[in-house]
Amino acid sequence: MTNKMTERVTSSFESQSMMKTLRARIHKVLKGKVSIEVPLLPSMCQQQGYAHAGLTFSIGDSAAGYSALTLMPENQEVMTAEIKINLLAPADGELLRAEGKVVKNGKRLVIVTSEIYALKNRKKKLIALMQGTMIPVQMKT
Amino acid sequence: MTNKMTERVTSSFESQSMMKTLRARIHKVLKGKVSIEVPLLPSMCQQQGYAHAGLTFSIGDSAAGYSALTLMPENQEVMTAEIKINLLAPADGELLRAEGKVVKNGKRLVIVTSEIYALKNRKKKLIALMQGTMIPVQMKT
Amino acid sequence: MTNKMTERVTSSFESQSMMKTLRARIHKVLKGKVSIEVPLLPSMCQQQGYAHAGLTFSIGDSAAGYSALTLMPENQEVMTAEIKINLLAPADGELLRAEGKVVKNGKRLVIVTSEIYALKNRKKKLIALMQGTMIPVQMKT
Amino acid sequence: MTNKMTERVTSSFESQSMMKTLRARIHKVLKGKVSIEVPLLPSMCQQQGYAHAGLTFSIGDSAAGYSALTLMPENQEVMTAEIKINLLAPADGELLRAEGKVVKNGKRLVIVTSEIYALKNRKKKLIALMQGTMIPVQMKT
Repeated sequence: MTNKMTERVTSSFESQSMMKTLRARIHKVLKGKVSIEVPLLPSMCQQQGYAHAGLTFSIGDSAAGYSALTLMPENQEVMTAEIKINLLAPADGELLRAEGKVVKNGKRLVIVTSEIYALKNRKKKLIALMQGTMIPVQMKT
Repeated sequence: MTNKMTERVTSSFESQSMMKTLRARIHKVLKGKVSIEVPLLPSMCQQQGYAHAGLTFSIGDSAAGYSALTLMPENQEVMTAEIKINLLAPADGELLRAEGKVVKNGKRLVIVTSEIYALKNRKKKLIALMQGTMIPVQMKT
Repeated sequence: MTNKMTERVTSSFESQSMMKTLRARIHKVLKGKVSIEVPLLPSMCQQQGYAHAGLTFSIGDSAAGYSALTLMPENQEVMTAEIKINLLAPADGELLRAEGKVVKNGKRLVIVTSEIYALKNRKKKLIALMQGTMIPVQMKT
Repeated sequence: MTNKMTERVTSSFESQSMMKTLRARIHKVLKGKVSIEVPLLPSMCQQQGYAHAGLTFSIGDSAAGYSALTLMPENQEVMTAEIKINLLAPADGELLRAEGKVVKNGKRLVIVTSEIYALKNRKKKLIALMQGTMIPVQMKT
């Protein structure tokens, strides 16, 4: 069961070319909880040299979406309907990690959150908080 | 004046390595309004072949931020405090264009919106709506 | 047609006891656009004497929801799935007016916005901006 | 210390006439955490007989704001800059309770969340989630 779930998330993740472009990788897959990591490369920054909000958002959104995917029946996947991000601190360090979580797995809407951390010198700092809605859709075959 | 404003936005934009990584470019700069475009490349997709929400968000956020920058005094720039995105339709086409706008230029907070359009076969379709807050910060020298 | 639409909104509005408690009234009903007004009473304030954000939110949310209702088939109504408010200025004056609008009338989700204005000495000032999602539900009979 | 903090929150809460109009009361005050309760009266409903989103929002916003207030120096209070609510389930029961919390107490922005529960027959159900930003302001004297 768990292996199948992990496989499903991994396989979908690998088909998201954006995740490859950003060098993101899956960190952990649990039921209703997925975390995604990305190295903080010089090519992903804003004008002050911190990670661009778009990078933080991208992995936060994907982590939240895959958390929802772990709870979907086989013929369904999810799309982001809406999501909000509060940026708490500059994204500085070697690595960003987004920890997604399902708060409510409704039939029509799945409510999710993501916490995004920067890892710097082995210290983990919360840099962003996301709250949003995923919507189940039929898998394309 | 206008030239100086455009220069300022362009110069800051060029120092955002993330924008280069995503192949984004400035489309237009007006007082309180900046639009940014990005080609819809196969390397920026989610699992269904549409543009990843992270791409849509990235240019929407930057367009909103640069709209705010056009109104800042010379020694200030802006950072995103928070922003929300509603995704209205799959991001499908040749090009995405984000049109950022300042709604309220407050002393402590600048309220912004972005509309993101997909351009396909010369038709322009609204695919996302963003609403958020930029915060003025002193320029690093 | 229009009369039926107005009747429908009015009838639902009158069954929202909260609107009565807040002294709100419908200001205008158009296809996809509804505005709601509320007098700024001393009983609706926060600690500084301005209108409480809860009042601003309440009429903004209802205006957005009723905008969506004007586009629903007869057997459906809507519920708020999520909504965000940015407060731009203190709510000060004789009256608040919320102008709701449908941005995208999707089959599963209806994307809406509300602009809330304070009216003071015949001047109209934008004090809040809302962006959210309504979800169609079957009418209870 | 704690007594002073509780007094401060209580005194400000009592000057919010909106809280009285809605029959809300403070449930608990801790450092960075405040909860507020409201009875689910027939006068606070939407058209289906559940509590109006405006009621849920009002106590969620106040709980979040007062959580922030517990961390402010004596000459400062807070105002809501923006806040987002996801409604997870109909607000049904005898009582609503909002549990506010400070996530990040920044100098310029305070990031907060609120969880709102409905209590029905002694069962507690999460019905809404809020995430937002409070901004410190000088106290009026």
